[in-house]
Amino acid sequence: MARLVVIGGGAAGMSAASAARRTAPDLDVVVCEAGSFAAYGMCGIPYFLGGTVERAESLLAYPPEEFRDKRGIDLRLRTRVSRIDTGARQVHLSGEGGSGPLGYDALVVASGADPVRPPVPGLDHDRVFTIRSLEEAIALRRLLDTGKVRRAIVVGAGYIGLETAEALVSAGVDVEVVEALPRVLGTVDEPIADLVTAELTRHVRLRLGARLGGVHGRDGGVTALVDGTETDTDLVVVATGVRPAADVLIQAGAEHLADRSVVVDAEMRTSLPGIFAAGDCVALPHLVLGGPAWVPLGPAANKTGRVAGTVAAGGAAAFTGIVGTAVVKVFELEVARTGLGLAEATAAGFAAAATDVTSRSRAKYYPGSSPLHVRLVHAPAGRLLGGQMAGCEGAAKRIDVLATALYAGLTVADLAALDLSYAPPFAPVYDPVIAAAQQAGRSGPGSAARPAPRPAQSTVGGSL
Amino acid sequence: MARLVVIGGGAAGMSAASAARRTAPDLDVVVCEAGSFAAYGMCGIPYFLGGTVERAESLLAYPPEEFRDKRGIDLRLRTRVSRIDTGARQVHLSGEGGSGPLGYDALVVASGADPVRPPVPGLDHDRVFTIRSLEEAIALRRLLDTGKVRRAIVVGAGYIGLETAEALVSAGVDVEVVEALPRVLGTVDEPIADLVTAELTRHVRLRLGARLGGVHGRDGGVTALVDGTETDTDLVVVATGVRPAADVLIQAGAEHLADRSVVVDAEMRTSLPGIFAAGDCVALPHLVLGGPAWVPLGPAANKTGRVAGTVAAGGAAAFTGIVGTAVVKVFELEVARTGLGLAEATAAGFAAAATDVTSRSRAKYYPGSSPLHVRLVHAPAGRLLGGQMAGCEGAAKRIDVLATALYAGLTVADLAALDLSYAPPFAPVYDPVIAAAQQAGRSGPGSAARPAPRPAQSTVGGSL
Repeated sequence: MARLVVIGGGAAGMSAASAARRTAPDLDVVVCEAGSFAAYGMCGIPYFLGGTVERAESLLAYPPEEFRDKRGIDLRLRTRVSRIDTGARQVHLSGEGGSGPLGYDALVVASGADPVRPPVPGLDHDRVFTIRSLEEAIALRRLLDTGKVRRAIVVGAGYIGLETAEALVSAGVDVEVVEALPRVLGTVDEPIADLVTAELTRHVRLRLGARLGGVHGRDGGVTALVDGTETDTDLVVVATGVRPAADVLIQAGAEHLADRSVVVDAEMRTSLPGIFAAGDCVALPHLVLGGPAWVPLGPAANKTGRVAGTVAAGGAAAFTGIVGTAVVKVFELEVARTGLGLAEATAAGFAAAATDVTSRSRAKYYPGSSPLHVRLVHAPAGRLLGGQMAGCEGAAKRIDVLATALYAGLTVADLAALDLSYAPPFAPVYDPVIAAAQQAGRSGPGSAARPAPRPAQSTVGGSL
Repeated sequence: MARLVVIGGGAAGMSAASAARRTAPDLDVVVCEAGSFAAYGMCGIPYFLGGTVERAESLLAYPPEEFRDKRGIDLRLRTRVSRIDTGARQVHLSGEGGSGPLGYDALVVASGADPVRPPVPGLDHDRVFTIRSLEEAIALRRLLDTGKVRRAIVVGAGYIGLETAEALVSAGVDVEVVEALPRVLGTVDEPIADLVTAELTRHVRLRLGARLGGVHGRDGGVTALVDGTETDTDLVVVATGVRPAADVLIQAGAEHLADRSVVVDAEMRTSLPGIFAAGDCVALPHLVLGGPAWVPLGPAANKTGRVAGTVAAGGAAAFTGIVGTAVVKVFELEVARTGLGLAEATAAGFAAAATDVTSRSRAKYYPGSSPLHVRLVHAPAGRLLGGQMAGCEGAAKRIDVLATALYAGLTVADLAALDLSYAPPFAPVYDPVIAAAQQAGRSGPGSAARPAPRPAQSTVGGSL
């Protein structure tokens, strides 16, 4: 019987295993997962940490028995793969799931991403956490439940840092966020980052342009060195980014980008025969950039896992690409982005401009209407290159209109011509997307950089 | 000095007047509005009625003085236009704004839509209302404020009927909704209508397949005859639909459809020289149907008014078209639709199928996650033809992804390939749109009926 081995039991790996099982019911499917949990929503960790989600088990898409007993997947937890022998088509295991070689006919590597830790002393202290596994989150939640944590320092103001800061505040902790850059959330442009900063500083102390120099233990806690100043605290969370966990693949000779993300084709094949990769360790076609990019996020992990598993099992599937859509909740603020930011667009060689509009989430007279900021990034000729939004409501999923427009190659004139839904509880009569597109059109619209699927001309002028 | 006359001071008419003023600062702009208010959001009326919006003035985009004093627009309230003399280029006025002929160089007709009343006796009673003007809404709100209204009958279960029913319940009134058809909300397909019925009957009594036979006065109220049974009630709201208020244009010889909506080109020109039309009285290009359709809704009224005013004043603008997007709040339920329903698609000659999926509004473990029903209507070859959604959250603006997809001519395979936003508070990792598209793809996907802007292949298989 042919065997598929999957390295990694996260979203991508378990999606691959499940898709392979559906595609080839007779295939022997083995999943090796280094940790103690499989198939959990890593994006849910901050909400478990903060108590919004009570039980860690709630984050599991399915319990391990579901895979073992109902799906016939040989899921081996606490099992590491140290090496791939491409010639012999074997992986080398260690841990509870076996030690020594295991042969494969096809291999899917879904080994995810690892936290990047700054090169400073003391990060191995048991009061220092990176929030990258459910095990670690459970340990931190236990610590929080003791009631002994009153203060915390979160290092890093990216998605995970900000979500963790919110979680700790929810758990009653006094939080300081320390970020080495002069601004928060490098994935959005400055006007949006400024709104995030404003929201953030309502809830936590924020130190921008400040670096963690090290951590050392003290009685009942730790002391963190930040910009040369020692601060006593009860715990430190290091959330300074992630990198592809692709060592085992790269050692085997897989083609990869400079950031060590693995290159795959539309069927998730690596450059190595019989070896597929999926999830947070791969670079994916970015439909706006027109080339591969490493943007490790949940939806693509699930989708690429499914493609890899299907194809590895002999079926047909392909992954089209990403446009870089992401959303994060920062306390009461929804912050969303898609496509390219202005600096990213310029760096990619586009002659890009940005248009900013502050509209509202509902009709102005409808109770609960709140400001909604929309930024469009576009070529002078009108092609949409990206968009960002922030507001207390209406940003998180409204960004999907721009994500869809990017996929379809629409222009800002097309955006202004969209027939978007309207009722007073849900939007102004000119939806914020349309208001922004009209504004962008005024600053010099025109024809699309490449032909839009329909000819479109924008309406003109200000509001009513 | 050249003169532009605008008939109608609603969203379309005031948008036209304002756009004309911006386009040609020297133009004499006269607006004739039959009622006592101009530039108000008609869609907000139910929320004023129910007390969600306290003051009627809140619904005004701008007060009349804004137009007269700041924008230099000669706004004439309580002024009717009875006739257009196309040869002499004159309109004939009556009312406070003058009587007799008024010459025009360009004319924009934005006369809106009128309520359709069933041909039964007694609808002129002062306890019988149609909710089509702010004056009438103010009168009804005054009546509600007396505290004497305990019971009401709403005739018609379309958008206005359902919003009015909700408003009356908010105002503490015991409501019965009477609908002649065997189902509610004819603008959505049955699976969605069934969800609306379920929500509606939590709050009101619903009589389907029941006709109003007439109304007669009684002491302190009225008696309504419904299906031969007399019911005493305190007031009756008739919301049995609207029709184009285009008589003055049609009498002047304007080309129109069988439903009496006026035919216009992309610049909002009617078939009559120098005469434009906009808003709820015109038929607009429906991008899915590929021909004109009468879908009287707020966003297109604003946009087409702006186009008509701009072009009438010598500027350049054009209206691309609609795809039939609409949303309504029915108590706790958001109900949204775009494109064609299954029966509409079939009637239009498409070989259409529908795919229904019930997903969730947030990650399943995130508090507040609620069911979200998505229906896709698509050609067997995969072209998206329409979509409908209902749920307690996440339907109202998520429909805009489908509206954008329809504009761009995407297929269900394209939909499944979209890079939509994900974070646990806002969506499941497979957004409901993607889940529905994957399901539709399984029932026989393929290439697009017309070429999609990008080649796309769907991922396959069930959830993780």
